[in-house]
Amino acid sequence: MTSIKNMAVSFQKINDQPPLVHHITNVVTVNDCANVTLALGGRPVMADSPEEAGEMVSMASSLVINIGTLHANSSKAMINAGLKANERGIPIIFDPVGVGATEYRKKTADYLLKKLRCSVICGNMSEMMAIAGEKTQARGVDSGDSMASAKKLASGLAAKLGATIAITGPRDVVSDGERTVSVANGHPMLANVTGTGCMTNSLIGVFAGSGNSPFDAAVAGIAAMGLAGEKAYQALCEGEGVGTFKVRLFDALSTLTPEEWQKGVQIY
Amino acid sequence: MTSIKNMAVSFQKINDQPPLVHHITNVVTVNDCANVTLALGGRPVMADSPEEAGEMVSMASSLVINIGTLHANSSKAMINAGLKANERGIPIIFDPVGVGATEYRKKTADYLLKKLRCSVICGNMSEMMAIAGEKTQARGVDSGDSMASAKKLASGLAAKLGATIAITGPRDVVSDGERTVSVANGHPMLANVTGTGCMTNSLIGVFAGSGNSPFDAAVAGIAAMGLAGEKAYQALCEGEGVGTFKVRLFDALSTLTPEEWQKGVQIY
Amino acid sequence: MTSIKNMAVSFQKINDQPPLVHHITNVVTVNDCANVTLALGGRPVMADSPEEAGEMVSMASSLVINIGTLHANSSKAMINAGLKANERGIPIIFDPVGVGATEYRKKTADYLLKKLRCSVICGNMSEMMAIAGEKTQARGVDSGDSMASAKKLASGLAAKLGATIAITGPRDVVSDGERTVSVANGHPMLANVTGTGCMTNSLIGVFAGSGNSPFDAAVAGIAAMGLAGEKAYQALCEGEGVGTFKVRLFDALSTLTPEEWQKGVQIY
Repeated sequence: MTSIKNMAVSFQKINDQPPLVHHITNVVTVNDCANVTLALGGRPVMADSPEEAGEMVSMASSLVINIGTLHANSSKAMINAGLKANERGIPIIFDPVGVGATEYRKKTADYLLKKLRCSVICGNMSEMMAIAGEKTQARGVDSGDSMASAKKLASGLAAKLGATIAITGPRDVVSDGERTVSVANGHPMLANVTGTGCMTNSLIGVFAGSGNSPFDAAVAGIAAMGLAGEKAYQALCEGEGVGTFKVRLFDALSTLTPEEWQKGVQIY
Repeated sequence: MTSIKNMAVSFQKINDQPPLVHHITNVVTVNDCANVTLALGGRPVMADSPEEAGEMVSMASSLVINIGTLHANSSKAMINAGLKANERGIPIIFDPVGVGATEYRKKTADYLLKKLRCSVICGNMSEMMAIAGEKTQARGVDSGDSMASAKKLASGLAAKLGATIAITGPRDVVSDGERTVSVANGHPMLANVTGTGCMTNSLIGVFAGSGNSPFDAAVAGIAAMGLAGEKAYQALCEGEGVGTFKVRLFDALSTLTPEEWQKGVQIY
Repeated sequence: MTSIKNMAVSFQKINDQPPLVHHITNVVTVNDCANVTLALGGRPVMADSPEEAGEMVSMASSLVINIGTLHANSSKAMINAGLKANERGIPIIFDPVGVGATEYRKKTADYLLKKLRCSVICGNMSEMMAIAGEKTQARGVDSGDSMASAKKLASGLAAKLGATIAITGPRDVVSDGERTVSVANGHPMLANVTGTGCMTNSLIGVFAGSGNSPFDAAVAGIAAMGLAGEKAYQALCEGEGVGTFKVRLFDALSTLTPEEWQKGVQIY
């Protein structure tokens, strides 16, 4: 099981040597992904053209790829950057947004997974079922599937793909094929802000980029987003809604202390 | 005239079966459009590549197209998705951002209107005049024209195009060619946040995607944004400006009650 | 030296005749750039396709180009719009984001500077050293270089390129080759929000678009962002972090008075 104490240590590492997290991501949530990276202490860079993605990733600590608004050019950039990241041992975090929704996403995701070795793949239940080749009840980029078999799916996929698999939902599941844990942090309001899944992948990128194992990074990124969601909700006043909740989410990530972390994370 | 009571009912419908609102929109306000869709209870999906837009829209409840940052690829995606939407009876909401500002936008908008049957077209006075082929005083994406003839323009265009026409401004006008109403909600500060027009189209997409007629959806979407603007302004404290106003706008949309709605909307 | 009194006057000019600031910029911070433009009293337009950028800029008061997420298409749009801006005497503000990080950015920036006459070039120390052809310690889009020689670099580059050079950092430097000043406003938290550099260029675009000289516009834009950062930080309460800070930044820009300006700006 993940050592929560090690997680506390990794906050210090982020501050001592801020990891540069290269993103090739969607246009919907790219600003939020950059800002959560900064909030947790990392440094973001978002170069997404095939002409430069490979060169840019060479100086990065981790690479986050996200197919939320996929284009021919961005998928080329993902391949170029991903191959260079693999060559240099830079961890890749893959967020297969809406992979089950269209043929185009499925084919691209399959191609990315064939060409690249990903350290972490993190998405919702429908996305992970689609990655596994199962039929899903996805609706757009939202999951429509029960998480009853999430642990089995995660550990099976992890073993098959040689990656840490993280499935987000009311209760998140993380597995590297040998160890499988649940993370019980979070708040339902997180689903009412666009891109909290994307942002979780950025947080995983920050943890993976500062020397944590893929498994630890995935647990830590997911727990950090969950804890921030809890703190953000608690800070809401009468009459405040999702607008303030989103602001408080960034506040919470930027003020999260190792003490709050150790006290708050719920990993089983 | 629109029945305000029916509008109240439609809030319940949104909650009971959240409509999936597919957007092909601009990169400036895409995040805000997704977030207002969520705030009102819908679910957004923003796939904008020609390779998948047609497939993605098939599972959607409505389609919002917006030419704010138009490209060759996104206009192809709009056509692909629009044709599929028409085939399936999925309502299309068209936001002709800055259509009078360049030849490229005008030609693209004309082509979209020729190829697609739109349910609602919603923009500012200069945009609607440009759609009608009149000379305008537009400056970039802002209107520079008087709304004195807005009702006439709206009802004429509605009859000609077979669509509901909504013209936003200090006093909004909506017409389906037979009925023409004014909506008097709103606050001047809405013009100081980028994308409130785009977001209004997203709200119309939510209402149209949950079973309201194009006319009712246009009135409801416009009134919801106006009411939210009023609430957001009232919630401002000393020293707060457009940053907080924008946050409060999302708060207001996410906490809007049928009671506030029925009490607050001003439709003539 | 810059006359602070003139700066106060220029606020009035912005209100009397809001300048239209055309941006061709990156997808990460494009929404924030539009919103700071509005917050200061300008009007933004963000058309970035080669098909229309030249036509759109013709009605603009200034043009901001930013290579933060550079693509083949956007660089064509920058050339088209830039040539037209030069032809019409519309000032160009150039933000060479991450120019030292990849060959692609360096070549594009060199090409833009060869083809276009820029009024202001504003970036961080590493970016300006890269523009000057020096080796840098840049890491992604962040500077890794000391500002010890910033004044010399700025005045040398200004003379060589015939542009106002602004180097942002803990203490900003602005030179037109004859006059060189430091701006001491700002707060370290500005570095924890993505895009404050991009937004500064938008503010310069607003000032340059309302009749200020390139030098005055650069000083004013930089000082306005710095002052807003100070005000935003002062307004933070216990438990608030970068989320609220960013909101307060927009608040501060939208409520900045000539009196606060004259009292607060620190230009040496």
